Amino acid sequence: MSLTVPALLTPSAGAPFERGTVERRELGEHDVLIDIAYAGICHSDIHQAREEWGKAIFPMVPGHEIAGVISAVGSGVTKHAVGDRAGVGCFVDSCRECEMCLAGEEQFCLKGNVATYNGKTYDGTPTYGGYSTQIVVDENYALRIPEGISLDVAAPLLCAGITLYSPLRHWGAGPGKKVAIVGMGGLGHMGVQLASALGAEVTVLSQSLSKQEDGMTLGADHYYATSDRQTFRDLRRSFDLIISTVGADIDVDAYLSLLRFEGSLVFVGLPENKQSFRVFSLTGARRNLSGSNIGGIRETQEMLDFCAEHGIGSVIETITADDVDKAYDRVVNSDVRYRFVIDTSTIPAS
Amino acid sequence: MSLTVPALLTPSAGAPFERGTVERRELGEHDVLIDIAYAGICHSDIHQAREEWGKAIFPMVPGHEIAGVISAVGSGVTKHAVGDRAGVGCFVDSCRECEMCLAGEEQFCLKGNVATYNGKTYDGTPTYGGYSTQIVVDENYALRIPEGISLDVAAPLLCAGITLYSPLRHWGAGPGKKVAIVGMGGLGHMGVQLASALGAEVTVLSQSLSKQEDGMTLGADHYYATSDRQTFRDLRRSFDLIISTVGADIDVDAYLSLLRFEGSLVFVGLPENKQSFRVFSLTGARRNLSGSNIGGIRETQEMLDFCAEHGIGSVIETITADDVDKAYDRVVNSDVRYRFVIDTSTIPAS
Repeated sequence: MSLTVPALLTPSAGAPFERGTVERRELGEHDVLIDIAYAGICHSDIHQAREEWGKAIFPMVPGHEIAGVISAVGSGVTKHAVGDRAGVGCFVDSCRECEMCLAGEEQFCLKGNVATYNGKTYDGTPTYGGYSTQIVVDENYALRIPEGISLDVAAPLLCAGITLYSPLRHWGAGPGKKVAIVGMGGLGHMGVQLASALGAEVTVLSQSLSKQEDGMTLGADHYYATSDRQTFRDLRRSFDLIISTVGADIDVDAYLSLLRFEGSLVFVGLPENKQSFRVFSLTGARRNLSGSNIGGIRETQEMLDFCAEHGIGSVIETITADDVDKAYDRVVNSDVRYRFVIDTSTIPAS
Repeated sequence: MSLTVPALLTPSAGAPFERGTVERRELGEHDVLIDIAYAGICHSDIHQAREEWGKAIFPMVPGHEIAGVISAVGSGVTKHAVGDRAGVGCFVDSCRECEMCLAGEEQFCLKGNVATYNGKTYDGTPTYGGYSTQIVVDENYALRIPEGISLDVAAPLLCAGITLYSPLRHWGAGPGKKVAIVGMGGLGHMGVQLASALGAEVTVLSQSLSKQEDGMTLGADHYYATSDRQTFRDLRRSFDLIISTVGADIDVDAYLSLLRFEGSLVFVGLPENKQSFRVFSLTGARRNLSGSNIGGIRETQEMLDFCAEHGIGSVIETITADDVDKAYDRVVNSDVRYRFVIDTSTIPAS
């Protein structure tokens, strides 16, 4: 028997959020039921709720930065137990058979994984995300949230955290490496903390210096304003790795010029427009342009464990269900330090 | 005392070539004098002779695909001897001190290496290239051309050969790897031979099928026309490495879609315009866009030895000094199979 649970939903593209309910599937043999405590607001929630990324499924319950506590488990569950602290990220299933899934890179599942919301399960049922009080998810797609991180600051790790952790690890951020993080927002402030904890020398490249103090507190060694063209002269050929977290167009050649020999400029932010570059910016020093997309389940767990070990969490502003529309506008205006997290106990109609 | 030697020179941007002379420097302690037998015509000769790549130095004697025989050596020369077969590529000196030079990657010398022509030595003297009968060059920047390759088919290896060999090696072309070569011209036809000899499965992606027979003869396993959009559907997610040798704009997203997970699209051709791409084409499968630029002296020697061992040379059309203007037009019209080589014995005024 399915479960009717309170949720915050938007009935159509760009419409205000409303309190309502969604059906969660009956707890299957390998499912866990998570009582959601907090759900982070990711910029991609806004793109999808406003239907800016192509046709979306409505009503929509966004939310793929989910943290809570397991309140029931199916009879075959072995990885989790009732009472465990658990999280859900950007996807809740994948084909489990393709080379990507077998390699633990389910985010690149060749069949296409099942998005936590605005997606469909393989049998065609729409998925609903974390702006809700409970969710049912296969145990293999639930993460353990270690003791030592509060659930509220842990929630954004499930997307923002892994989005930065994966490329930092893949491109070898660590001692002796110079890493730049472009953009000091929800993604960027995670990148600073993670790159610093990994031992890299970290530079923030932000439009202005308005968040410099925060950046240094979170672990940055240097902080530059990209609105100042002198920054690009001073930092020429400085970095092994630059991760761009911004969703706006960037001057790709200018950032490539900041890379050392064989350095990589990696996109994790997703500008809507095509980006352009001069081929010589690559050939001149065997530089690379690359992109990274969240991470697999195994790596997401590794990231959560790493964060717990290093005392890393998102810097958050906790809001109630009534504040979500306003919060969306503030995210679009870059007016948040650094992630909104919805206290899901405020979702049920009183 | 400097040496006055016959050369083919163009007095100004786009002007026809004329027979004339240039001064070669007095043979220094570490210099070798090479009697040039053949000089290849590289597309970049044309760009520079027509001043299409920014301000150029005139009169210009192009030519950086030089093959000949050493006829004199300075007193301190240890690497070469009179009678040795020798070649010169795209640069004739570099700072020898920077991290790039010390790593044997002189093509990326941080001070800027000294181009074989249309450049200046570190004391400010203009350099003149291989469309000439003799050249004086530091022994460290002369290559050994092994027995077993004719000098005429060896000449184009000094630029076209290393331009493909270096990225093929760097990105691991070999057994089990699927490599596509975009463009079946002077660069492309070297890529096919080298990738095949390295053991990769080789696909040519050419505008039409007009050179298919040649491609298969040179070692390609597959040959597709890029003018047929079906090619891009059939080959989706096929390649580990795609090397683009073309100088025209390419549909970057279309080629990226042909790459497997973590595959690389590497530019060695240099389109004049900016190229553009959707960020999602990278993030969707952790793909890379990269660029490669010729190779260092050590790797160029390795390439020459590899070619000798595998019986690889350029497929050439030998021309006289009188044919160079016409040859330039034919190169621009892609009307050459696959490299023009000037018989430099035809350069002296009769």
